[in-house]
Amino acid sequence: MKSKKSFSRRAFLAGTAATSALALSPKSLKSDENIFSSRTRYRPTLGIVKLNGNENPYGPSQKALAAINEASKHSGYYVNSSGEKLRSMIAERHGLSTDYIVLSSGSTAALTNIALASLKKGHILAPDLFWDSTANLASEVSQNKLKRLPSNIMHEIDLKNMRDSITKDISLVHITNPNNPTGSVLNNSDLKEFCREASNYSTVLIDEAYNDLTDKPNSSTMIPLIKEGKNIIVTRTFSKIHGLAGLRIGYMLAKPEIISEVMKFGFIGNWTTNKAGVAAAIASYNDEVFLSHSKSMINEGKEMVMEAIKKNGLSALPSKANFIFVNLDSLNAEQFRKSMAKRNIIVSGIFRNHKNWSRVSMGKIDDLQKYINALPEVLEEIS
Amino acid sequence: MKSKKSFSRRAFLAGTAATSALALSPKSLKSDENIFSSRTRYRPTLGIVKLNGNENPYGPSQKALAAINEASKHSGYYVNSSGEKLRSMIAERHGLSTDYIVLSSGSTAALTNIALASLKKGHILAPDLFWDSTANLASEVSQNKLKRLPSNIMHEIDLKNMRDSITKDISLVHITNPNNPTGSVLNNSDLKEFCREASNYSTVLIDEAYNDLTDKPNSSTMIPLIKEGKNIIVTRTFSKIHGLAGLRIGYMLAKPEIISEVMKFGFIGNWTTNKAGVAAAIASYNDEVFLSHSKSMINEGKEMVMEAIKKNGLSALPSKANFIFVNLDSLNAEQFRKSMAKRNIIVSGIFRNHKNWSRVSMGKIDDLQKYINALPEVLEEIS
Repeated sequence: MKSKKSFSRRAFLAGTAATSALALSPKSLKSDENIFSSRTRYRPTLGIVKLNGNENPYGPSQKALAAINEASKHSGYYVNSSGEKLRSMIAERHGLSTDYIVLSSGSTAALTNIALASLKKGHILAPDLFWDSTANLASEVSQNKLKRLPSNIMHEIDLKNMRDSITKDISLVHITNPNNPTGSVLNNSDLKEFCREASNYSTVLIDEAYNDLTDKPNSSTMIPLIKEGKNIIVTRTFSKIHGLAGLRIGYMLAKPEIISEVMKFGFIGNWTTNKAGVAAAIASYNDEVFLSHSKSMINEGKEMVMEAIKKNGLSALPSKANFIFVNLDSLNAEQFRKSMAKRNIIVSGIFRNHKNWSRVSMGKIDDLQKYINALPEVLEEIS
Repeated sequence: MKSKKSFSRRAFLAGTAATSALALSPKSLKSDENIFSSRTRYRPTLGIVKLNGNENPYGPSQKALAAINEASKHSGYYVNSSGEKLRSMIAERHGLSTDYIVLSSGSTAALTNIALASLKKGHILAPDLFWDSTANLASEVSQNKLKRLPSNIMHEIDLKNMRDSITKDISLVHITNPNNPTGSVLNNSDLKEFCREASNYSTVLIDEAYNDLTDKPNSSTMIPLIKEGKNIIVTRTFSKIHGLAGLRIGYMLAKPEIISEVMKFGFIGNWTTNKAGVAAAIASYNDEVFLSHSKSMINEGKEMVMEAIKKNGLSALPSKANFIFVNLDSLNAEQFRKSMAKRNIIVSGIFRNHKNWSRVSMGKIDDLQKYINALPEVLEEIS
């Protein structure tokens, strides 16, 4: 029974690959993963298995917790010197001076400002799928718009097409790498070449929220191009591998003149961050034991889920992040989400118009086992 | 010597009151209290007496600290249920439903959004002096502008003139009450009457950051007008009496349709706040022992400073907040600031073009004593 279903799904995929949904609606379709929705948030007391956000379930680290407890005593005052310390640590790692770095309340605050600043001057060019919440929000209140380029059937970003699409009215190219919700990472030298060229015509933003989860973080980052003086912005966050999503610390890196411009569109900087989060970020930044443990647990989870997906006759994109984009073949991702939710397992629903793709985030091993155990039942139910 | 100087200053004030700087430059003069500046931030290790920010030096409370330590363990995930709990507590106190309340990273994030949303539609009308950072920032990147009305020699807000100045192109009236940097509070029934009328023509924003520090917080708030369905926004923060400035929790209260509009201009809401801060805010919200202790210490500080100011032949505005706006008579507030800074005592410099007024914030009693001790020397030095 299982193997038959597996077979039929694979056959269906093979047959429809060429004609699958490549024609994208120009109108931005909202993902059903409403970030304001409270219904699917983590409520440990209810026994809900939360696999719809890309947090690190192993965080914060013990060092971060100790740092929070100490720093909180002084939290009657705004962040200043601890913010400077964190900026210095980031600067030192990347061989930049601190005026190339600005802290932000999550990378969200910086990304929102970047979008508002860019849309004042022109349109934002982006792939079909990326972490689009900030660009969407800003484009709703701006005259200029977010323009998306179609990706191929494997959701790969076509850098050549993207380069050719940078017309005069484009002020920002926005790429998430590794990408969300796909988990895919662009070839490093291809992306570097693209960035070097594209940044002659437009500012290029690389959201590197998941960089630490790649195999070789240092060689997959575009930060060296900022050092070269290119018109490039990189954003990073402590919300992912560092396990500090609930403490809202992110940062952007760019030339000081770009930072000055972005800072005009909303308050970012040390004093807009919180003392607990900054202390936790400092304690966590070089905590290799915690980071490598988290990464190996996440990778173990990904292997388990990948294996289960295959066993159930499905496929998924190779992921360099802490989530997997599963190809449900002919099945509907919203029905899949609902069926999982009935079992208290929360995964994402449909992203834009990709009705047959479902994103599952890497929770703890036990939680992923529940997803794996539920898979056959759920697939049966919605088939 | 002292009494002679006192006399001459008083005489000067009396003689110039009528002709004093009432003619305001239409161009917005920036305060020298640069919120991005790191130089004057609190560095306890350097023995600096920090009296230039309006934080509560007695915070956070012990209850808040315990709550932070507990909540931080779960800070790998975004704020959700704890944010709902805090919103419910706020809603309950004011007899509103939770859809009238949105949390924000400090009140700053909400205030920035309110300014951006308002300036999209028209100008912002405000008094000469108020907490203008968010309106200034937003007006720099907007076509519409911040319009200020002159105040009288005592920096009192002229509500009649303000009401008469609400032309068709005004989208927001922005008032800080108690006001910053003056510490003055508007007469409650006058302000209510103004709000009821003005809100027929424009949205009215009352920033109540210092409401908890007034003698009767419940009867000096404009929140009841929101309940009446008026076109009114109130913002509040945990950065002042609650002693949680470094944990960035604020909120806005308004009709749901106003909140929806404001939320389009930047991310605010539960998930944009941090778990440590929300937990601390919940623990602190009804902590009457901590709050009344803080208030009595702040009031004790104000009495000490007021007495010292008089002893040195100066005067100050009566303050209902945790800072005092000192009339330096003929002396220059920037020279005063520099002379205090040489002694490691940090106070604010000139606000807009009011060169002879200096704001001192209520630090701990020991720190205020250092200010008081330095006063005669400093006044001598700059005379």
